[in-house]
Amino acid sequence: MFEQLGLIGCGLMGGSFALALKQAGLVKRVVGYSKSPSTTERARKMGVIDVEAPSALLAVAGADIVLLAVPVAATERTLKSIKHLITPQMLVMDVGSTKADVVSAARSALGSRLGSFIPAHPITGKELAGVEHADANLYRGAKVVITPTERTLTAQLHKAQLLWLALGCEVSTMSPQAHDAAFAAVSHLPHLLAFAMMHSITGQLHGEDYLQLAGPGFKDFTRIAAADAKVWRDILHANQEEVLSQLQHYRHALQAFEAALQANDTAALESMIEHASAARSQCFAAPKKD
Amino acid sequence: MFEQLGLIGCGLMGGSFALALKQAGLVKRVVGYSKSPSTTERARKMGVIDVEAPSALLAVAGADIVLLAVPVAATERTLKSIKHLITPQMLVMDVGSTKADVVSAARSALGSRLGSFIPAHPITGKELAGVEHADANLYRGAKVVITPTERTLTAQLHKAQLLWLALGCEVSTMSPQAHDAAFAAVSHLPHLLAFAMMHSITGQLHGEDYLQLAGPGFKDFTRIAAADAKVWRDILHANQEEVLSQLQHYRHALQAFEAALQANDTAALESMIEHASAARSQCFAAPKKD
Repeated sequence: MFEQLGLIGCGLMGGSFALALKQAGLVKRVVGYSKSPSTTERARKMGVIDVEAPSALLAVAGADIVLLAVPVAATERTLKSIKHLITPQMLVMDVGSTKADVVSAARSALGSRLGSFIPAHPITGKELAGVEHADANLYRGAKVVITPTERTLTAQLHKAQLLWLALGCEVSTMSPQAHDAAFAAVSHLPHLLAFAMMHSITGQLHGEDYLQLAGPGFKDFTRIAAADAKVWRDILHANQEEVLSQLQHYRHALQAFEAALQANDTAALESMIEHASAARSQCFAAPKKD
Repeated sequence: MFEQLGLIGCGLMGGSFALALKQAGLVKRVVGYSKSPSTTERARKMGVIDVEAPSALLAVAGADIVLLAVPVAATERTLKSIKHLITPQMLVMDVGSTKADVVSAARSALGSRLGSFIPAHPITGKELAGVEHADANLYRGAKVVITPTERTLTAQLHKAQLLWLALGCEVSTMSPQAHDAAFAAVSHLPHLLAFAMMHSITGQLHGEDYLQLAGPGFKDFTRIAAADAKVWRDILHANQEEVLSQLQHYRHALQAFEAALQANDTAALESMIEHASAARSQCFAAPKKD
């Protein structure tokens, strides 16, 4: 389907994308660039990319598909640095977890070449960052949200949709604003809460002893706390307003639980837990199974 | 090792214990009782128990080992109802997630027979309650905390330790108070936070749409929210003071994140996330792997 992938950012997300495309027979050659030359070299040695590029621009030269897999705050300067090699035939995508800031960065960086850029957010990841953990199946079964703009070229949009479908993803489109509101609720705030959980315990006198006793529930609850600091600093900052608004909603919900607990209102507590438990079960019920 | 297990409460925890004992060849016969006769019947039909008992007392008659697997608030009345069949040779245990209240219930219910009772908390579970989900391997690899009292009989304590070891568990002992403080931090508060997460989202106008987009991170983060309402009502209520105290610690940690986010202090945000991420990685690092 594609001749050459220009990969900018050879970490977990970018590396996995390259491997997935290769595994699916969708690309002939991958030229990769990472800010850290040792990452680029490791990616080549691992067979994630075929050729190391010394700059983002040179990774794009000759590519018919380009993937940006960098922290979202780096989107604008990265797009600026590759802008004059972007053609209307080229498919350029990102994999960032926020979309309003990415679209705004793309508008400002690309101007009239915005049409080739398809903002994409694959809902997947691992707690372990880095090309070492790149996985050809990371995207399989994942939801991918695409947030086109009014200037998006239809041909590129269709190419992007077909590509993600070919990787086994479930593709939907929405506005960047609706995307960011939703993901503040189901991803960004949960990350913040998990980070705070670790701080809350490690800040206590006996915190280390407590953590020794943590079981599988705590392990799952805090898995997302092991996320990459730079990536999540950028996401939380980029989606600041929606995250703070979700935090207000959350604080109210938490206060209701605290009030019931303080008042020894076990009936209220039971019915609130029942509601939460039913909502969680329904959320991940059939047809999807794990 | 044992002739007859008297199982009171044939749900996930109790049923799995019976299956594990049978699988390990540690018991010849299981007599079971559940509050709901249909549960007891299902447990027998599934082979989890061999004989249905019409009361807790009759489940204990003839047993040399007894397991209470009931919501913690039911401990005192259950122990009272079986008290006069408890002998110094019998090993009686519970599996409750709180221990100070269980020990106090046992003191009040058992009096001079307290020595046979070994308060135990195996750190394991599933989001799916009920005997249908009983699993002979639920306890394998789990930590088990035993909280003996000054009246605990040494012989019964050793029996209990050997039994859990034989099931593949890692056994430790601590005081009921230290147990409850630790588990408020690494289990009870996380459950409360996960319950509140579901309420926070379902209480919003577009909450249902948001949940449609939830990915694997949210799935893991909220797994514990699917817990049993009666069981968790009792746990939170029984350990109210410690849970509320952990909630105060948590609120401070969350406020620090909110302040950094509001102030656009990306450096602080990054270093706080880094700390959380390192703490989480360290917490579940080698030698244990999943």
